[in-house]
Amino acid sequence: METVDLLISGDWVLTLDPNLGTLEGGAVAVSGERIKDVGERLRLESLYRPRRRIHAAGSVVLPGLINAHTHAAMTLFRGLADDLPLMDWLQDYIFPVEAHLRAEWVRWGTRLACAEMLMGGITTFCDMYLFEEEVASAAKEAGMRAVVGEVLYDFPSPNYGPLEEGFRYTEALIRKWKGDSLIQPAVEPHAPFTCSPELLQRARRVADENQVPLIIHLSETRDEVERVRDEHGTTPIRHLHRLGTLEGPTVAAHVVWADDEELELLRESGVGVVHNPESNMKLASGVSPVPRMLEMGIPVGLGTDGCASNNNLDLFGEMDTAAKLHKVHSQDPTVLDAQTVLKMATALGAKALGMEEEIGTLTPGKRADLIIVGLEAPHLLPLFHVTSHLVYSARASDVKTVLVNGRVVVEEGRILTLDLEAVLNAAEGIAREIQQILRKNTGSPEVSP
Amino acid sequence: METVDLLISGDWVLTLDPNLGTLEGGAVAVSGERIKDVGERLRLESLYRPRRRIHAAGSVVLPGLINAHTHAAMTLFRGLADDLPLMDWLQDYIFPVEAHLRAEWVRWGTRLACAEMLMGGITTFCDMYLFEEEVASAAKEAGMRAVVGEVLYDFPSPNYGPLEEGFRYTEALIRKWKGDSLIQPAVEPHAPFTCSPELLQRARRVADENQVPLIIHLSETRDEVERVRDEHGTTPIRHLHRLGTLEGPTVAAHVVWADDEELELLRESGVGVVHNPESNMKLASGVSPVPRMLEMGIPVGLGTDGCASNNNLDLFGEMDTAAKLHKVHSQDPTVLDAQTVLKMATALGAKALGMEEEIGTLTPGKRADLIIVGLEAPHLLPLFHVTSHLVYSARASDVKTVLVNGRVVVEEGRILTLDLEAVLNAAEGIAREIQQILRKNTGSPEVSP
Repeated sequence: METVDLLISGDWVLTLDPNLGTLEGGAVAVSGERIKDVGERLRLESLYRPRRRIHAAGSVVLPGLINAHTHAAMTLFRGLADDLPLMDWLQDYIFPVEAHLRAEWVRWGTRLACAEMLMGGITTFCDMYLFEEEVASAAKEAGMRAVVGEVLYDFPSPNYGPLEEGFRYTEALIRKWKGDSLIQPAVEPHAPFTCSPELLQRARRVADENQVPLIIHLSETRDEVERVRDEHGTTPIRHLHRLGTLEGPTVAAHVVWADDEELELLRESGVGVVHNPESNMKLASGVSPVPRMLEMGIPVGLGTDGCASNNNLDLFGEMDTAAKLHKVHSQDPTVLDAQTVLKMATALGAKALGMEEEIGTLTPGKRADLIIVGLEAPHLLPLFHVTSHLVYSARASDVKTVLVNGRVVVEEGRILTLDLEAVLNAAEGIAREIQQILRKNTGSPEVSP
Repeated sequence: METVDLLISGDWVLTLDPNLGTLEGGAVAVSGERIKDVGERLRLESLYRPRRRIHAAGSVVLPGLINAHTHAAMTLFRGLADDLPLMDWLQDYIFPVEAHLRAEWVRWGTRLACAEMLMGGITTFCDMYLFEEEVASAAKEAGMRAVVGEVLYDFPSPNYGPLEEGFRYTEALIRKWKGDSLIQPAVEPHAPFTCSPELLQRARRVADENQVPLIIHLSETRDEVERVRDEHGTTPIRHLHRLGTLEGPTVAAHVVWADDEELELLRESGVGVVHNPESNMKLASGVSPVPRMLEMGIPVGLGTDGCASNNNLDLFGEMDTAAKLHKVHSQDPTVLDAQTVLKMATALGAKALGMEEEIGTLTPGKRADLIIVGLEAPHLLPLFHVTSHLVYSARASDVKTVLVNGRVVVEEGRILTLDLEAVLNAAEGIAREIQQILRKNTGSPEVSP
């Protein structure tokens, strides 16, 4: 009998691997950072001698969820301002505060985000923000998988200053983290309306030279489409395509406004798309043509976007909302069924990020990123279909145990890798600083009803 | 100093009463079944000698949430079948199972629903189903406030058989429960397309004679509008108006398809409306004109609808979804702000049900129905605006303590009034019966991924 580090079993194992399917009374054997074997519990018990066992009675084991687009440190701005026109929200609240952004804020904001995400069953996040070195370090410290990239745009950054320094920062980030077992660096121009053609083409070159993905916001709002059309005479997706920016590993967040010809450009170029239903709804951006993209074979993952426009980092809520939004929008109750949506939050998210060889399903050889979700609570009974419950009934708080890269990082709902009290205290301290900044800038009130 | 039964204090007290507003460091004094006083904690401490104190540090105290439209016992069909065309879902799953419905199922299904709802901060639900005597008894036993009414329609019922018996059952329900401190009976014709004009007019008479409300599904789907137009030459709302069915206390669930003239008929008649965003989305029914109704002054509450089309009874999720759905649908990020949505789940829900004198706000003299929600968790930090967090960030699992009618029914997340294990076991047993029925009828599989 071979020794393995961990044998995890539950009432159900949803592998999300089309060849392995779903196992009643299944188990997962973990060796080091990777999945060694997946199968019937009795078979695995007969093959392996585990150093440790986790038997999750009344639970389901599945791949860790992938938050394929977020701005983790924006947890610090959770609920700072809601229900406003986009420009008021940005100009009166987000921009004045971000002008004061410091490395320390991003470090604590990311720790807070990692705590929320891990405790809610998210094992990987794909980030775009400022001071991304802090994001990488905080995620690594939390034991969480992350794709990180410093945001690049035409104007000076509160982190690196002029654009030239932004590319230098990006290249340093790549040098430091490329090949890390948890952190994957990327090149991240902000969006077609905030980046010149030169910036976009240089970003593509840097990504290609370093063999890392290019990640960008794309076609999120009607306003963006109009601005790009005014400036470049075409739509954002066609604009990027003409510049050659879509060729090579690319992740596009949002893709709300796109016709079939544009979707075909994305498909041909192999672009991964990330759908952020709650943020698109809250900011009134529009409804992304997700059923159409899936039909065309474009890999579409699921993201929470930043916490400031959501206002949480909860992929259970996001799955539920995605499934329902597209039904009512297309007037068809059969679109985005539970199985499809769960795939978007796992296997398809991995594919959208170009990480399908490493994560997204419980497949031997892949990284051991998995979660255990309890099924024994009033809101989860009775049980007819496990996938239905995960998408339509479960909550982030039903997550019991979380493994990333073979390491138990959440156990029975408690996070093991971060000092939660220190994180919560720091977040409160930064919130008081933010309130002072806003009081000076806009006369905005402090904490209020 | 006057003795009171309970003094409840928290970091914040959101009264939802326009005259009392929100109190930082506030408290609520409870005497018997009612709220005695609300105000600054120090003032209340100086006025009252409480038999018991609950000080909820790091928490907010607010009125219990009102689930203004549901079919509680349909928890038993949670996730039985999803993502299907409406008629397939009804004819292949719901109807074959409901044909076997027994009083015992409704009793246990309602207990399960009450557990889920109370633990999630819902203190009142408005129900429509079969065997409503069981619903009333189970709610009473759970210590939960409920509006109950036996569904009436043109075809024989699995409970009472012919319609004549349905009216007899309804009148017995009214006689038994009218004046009860928790249970409010109602007369509940199913919908304009399933009830003849005679049924509707008789239902109105019975409601008026007994001074109880009439509750009905109204204008939920396009199909309903077409069917009523085919049969009666007009739309459902105009049809009910012509029949005189809207005059007198009336609650209309859904109201998805309605033009301004129809909304004006509802407003003039004083009809309360219940919005069920998640059910309307999942069944692809459409988007109700909620912002318009609120603008016109129609009281619009919030409901989960039955668990079979949702698939939970979670008003925190419903608030979040309502706020976001109407923003994206109207392309305006300012509609249905957090404060409005929280009112829909409390004060406006009470008004829609005609219960605003008794519940919906923390006002001295009203019933002591209130909840304590914890604010100290990663997904709730930092805290800038309490109402924003309740609507956009909090989960049903953040509810700590629940009072209904002055009685503590949930304490630190544990339900005190029901034997949860017995409820969960019974639900599983009934689920096995349901699977057997479906296997015989449709060859549907058992519990599956």
